[in-house]
Amino acid sequence: MDLPPARRRGQRSRPVNYSAAFQCLAGCEGRYPLTQAIYRCPTCGGLLDVAHDLRALADRSPAAWMKLFDDRYKRTLWPYGSGVWGKREWVAPEVADDAIVSMDEGGTNLFWAERYGRSLGLDELWVKLCGNSHTGSFKDLGMTVLVSVVRQAIREGLPVQAIACASTGDTSASLAAYGAAAGLPVVVLLPRGKVSTAQLVQPIASGALVLSLDTDFDGCMSIVQRLAAEGVVYLANSMNALRIEGQKTVAMEIAQQFDWTVPDWIVLPSGNLGNAYALYAGFRMMKELGLITRYPRLCVAQAESANPLYLAWQAGKREVTAQKAQETLASAIQIGNPVSAPRAFRALEAMDGVVEQASEQELCDAAARADKTGMYTCPHTAVALAALEKLVKRGLIKKRERVVVVSTASGLKFTEFKVRYHDRAIAGVSAEHANPPVSLPADYGSVLGALEAHIKARG
Amino acid sequence: MDLPPARRRGQRSRPVNYSAAFQCLAGCEGRYPLTQAIYRCPTCGGLLDVAHDLRALADRSPAAWMKLFDDRYKRTLWPYGSGVWGKREWVAPEVADDAIVSMDEGGTNLFWAERYGRSLGLDELWVKLCGNSHTGSFKDLGMTVLVSVVRQAIREGLPVQAIACASTGDTSASLAAYGAAAGLPVVVLLPRGKVSTAQLVQPIASGALVLSLDTDFDGCMSIVQRLAAEGVVYLANSMNALRIEGQKTVAMEIAQQFDWTVPDWIVLPSGNLGNAYALYAGFRMMKELGLITRYPRLCVAQAESANPLYLAWQAGKREVTAQKAQETLASAIQIGNPVSAPRAFRALEAMDGVVEQASEQELCDAAARADKTGMYTCPHTAVALAALEKLVKRGLIKKRERVVVVSTASGLKFTEFKVRYHDRAIAGVSAEHANPPVSLPADYGSVLGALEAHIKARG
Repeated sequence: MDLPPARRRGQRSRPVNYSAAFQCLAGCEGRYPLTQAIYRCPTCGGLLDVAHDLRALADRSPAAWMKLFDDRYKRTLWPYGSGVWGKREWVAPEVADDAIVSMDEGGTNLFWAERYGRSLGLDELWVKLCGNSHTGSFKDLGMTVLVSVVRQAIREGLPVQAIACASTGDTSASLAAYGAAAGLPVVVLLPRGKVSTAQLVQPIASGALVLSLDTDFDGCMSIVQRLAAEGVVYLANSMNALRIEGQKTVAMEIAQQFDWTVPDWIVLPSGNLGNAYALYAGFRMMKELGLITRYPRLCVAQAESANPLYLAWQAGKREVTAQKAQETLASAIQIGNPVSAPRAFRALEAMDGVVEQASEQELCDAAARADKTGMYTCPHTAVALAALEKLVKRGLIKKRERVVVVSTASGLKFTEFKVRYHDRAIAGVSAEHANPPVSLPADYGSVLGALEAHIKARG
Repeated sequence: MDLPPARRRGQRSRPVNYSAAFQCLAGCEGRYPLTQAIYRCPTCGGLLDVAHDLRALADRSPAAWMKLFDDRYKRTLWPYGSGVWGKREWVAPEVADDAIVSMDEGGTNLFWAERYGRSLGLDELWVKLCGNSHTGSFKDLGMTVLVSVVRQAIREGLPVQAIACASTGDTSASLAAYGAAAGLPVVVLLPRGKVSTAQLVQPIASGALVLSLDTDFDGCMSIVQRLAAEGVVYLANSMNALRIEGQKTVAMEIAQQFDWTVPDWIVLPSGNLGNAYALYAGFRMMKELGLITRYPRLCVAQAESANPLYLAWQAGKREVTAQKAQETLASAIQIGNPVSAPRAFRALEAMDGVVEQASEQELCDAAARADKTGMYTCPHTAVALAALEKLVKRGLIKKRERVVVVSTASGLKFTEFKVRYHDRAIAGVSAEHANPPVSLPADYGSVLGALEAHIKARG
């Protein structure tokens, strides 16, 4: 890759002092290079984690790390302007510059939800708008790491022909875009007839091979897993620990955006639960390296229709019971058997966490009310906002506490959800805040009257 | 407004050394405060411009301004982290902090379109992704200025009841969101039956009063203009010079992102032509104050279906002839009588500009090819990409020149455009790059075969 002049300045080599490797989350021995196509612990079959050489990273003081990260934040020196690669020593230190596939991840708005926060009785509600990114969801944070590591692995000889996933949503959109930017083939498997072209149009537009199979989602998964097992493809599924390394920068960025202080609460919507662990991993690393001294409390918010973690937590269990998730408007978290559940329990324990849920009615209400204060929330973010409201009502979150809600995707991906709500067309949901257009004759008096009535109704 | 602690630090007062006022673009005498509800020159009825006190601004050296802007860029100190308010002295210096309605405008990705650029034979093609913003279009840059100035004006006694526009697209989305964040009423007028709920769902969700009138667009405009003339509403239409002040920061940000150097070319799609003038205004101010020494060349790209500027330019005229715009997929620039045409001619002359056009087929091709390299272009951006290709083919833009295409909106707003293209359902357009899903039986061999064929076809 021949970088243009604007990207040629400064240090060009990879930060070789630092290293990271896969290791078993449950503690089995063995460390595996990040460029190895390995998805589970070869000993116990469990999840992997990325372990960093913290002793090496301690060569810089906390103040020096903070200064380094601040100096790079959103600046022009490639690839450090990315919120992920600006923290590369903490993320994937052994990836070479010219393997990196970056599209300006992170650096997203930490929106002060002034009016909505006050309506809940909170002084300081902030919404981290992770969906304001290249493909419109927080998945870009993890995908830039995964695709970069795979590009490096392929250069080093990994003989895969494509990167693959079985996904119908944000994961395939993000994977396909990063693959397209890198010139790497991407294949997406999905069950035939279950997914509309609109849902799939991002990977289609990005030129991915989209295969629609005569089976269900599990059938797709088993084929893609065999392709990965036989070394034909690299598997970009949600259990992949590389993605967590990128996603953990959300935690670091939130602290950074508060001038390296920690909020009191973080509320995030979660289905597969990888993002909950990623948040924890980010705060943990900052704590281990002395940048912060405490954790925020964590609230994982689930849709009532897909609430295995909520049920387990209520029952005091440390393991989820797989369920068949019911349909929910928050489609990206409609997951009955979350692959990262063992990770999420660690996050909840370390961060004095709670689990809350929201019904379809509650998420619709929260979205509609938040939107009227200048947001444009996706249904998953609405689940988190609805959960937050319950915690405030219960007195668990207090007026003066600083709360951050993590918004996972752009509302622009959910036009149909918004239209159906405001058309009062969502079955079983009362659309109290619907604001349909008002039809009028084209005369000045009618318009003036409607405007005056509107102003009066606002009070 | 009681700012939370994180936003209380630092200088709190407005930068009173500097001032700006409306004046007639054509040169009539008279200066009017930015907080005055004035939309046209009271003498000649022509367009207004915002004039800054350049002598006062010269109290800082070019290097000092660049350092100040760099120090603020995307930082935490309110409101300077916004790409617009980080340059507030150059934009709207007399707006008080607590009048500012900001949602992290600007600071958008200047995407290095490496693969797409090379496919055109360019070493350095960059795409300024202005649509990656709070409401998904570059309109936010101008709207934050307009709504902030109006909020200040209302506090100072301006007796308007709402901010109004007649718009069916990005303008109403942006106005409604900024109004919602500020708690100010917004009214949107539009012709009944011409606009679907999907097109309007952003202002609807933001709680604007959306009035659907039994008339055409001109009928809506005449009612909203009377409301403004009688002082009932403040008019946020596209002739409003305040919006140009915010939009001009795109030029400043592009220079800043190249470490205060100027690219060789800027290509931007334009309908009403305000954005072309805004680009020029930004570069002009930087040149006048010594931050840059030359202008980039400008290419204004129009849809062939709505090309009044193109026709005028081809004919060597300095005035557009109003036309009835034909339907185009680039709906936001489907404008036959561009209100800012007199402004655009100034930009073209100063910036050694050219005007190019793109057909529906050409814009569809450009969008599809760009998307396959990791972008997800809106149809307007595709018009600019198609125009660029023509200029490269004609040899006007050369291999080693640095080119920036301004992307005006998020592709996520144009799902239907993408779906129709890949479904080969756009009448009159041959969808050579369509990439529909491939249906297969659910067996490993079929999937492997399809993957291998795909890899082979990529070459």
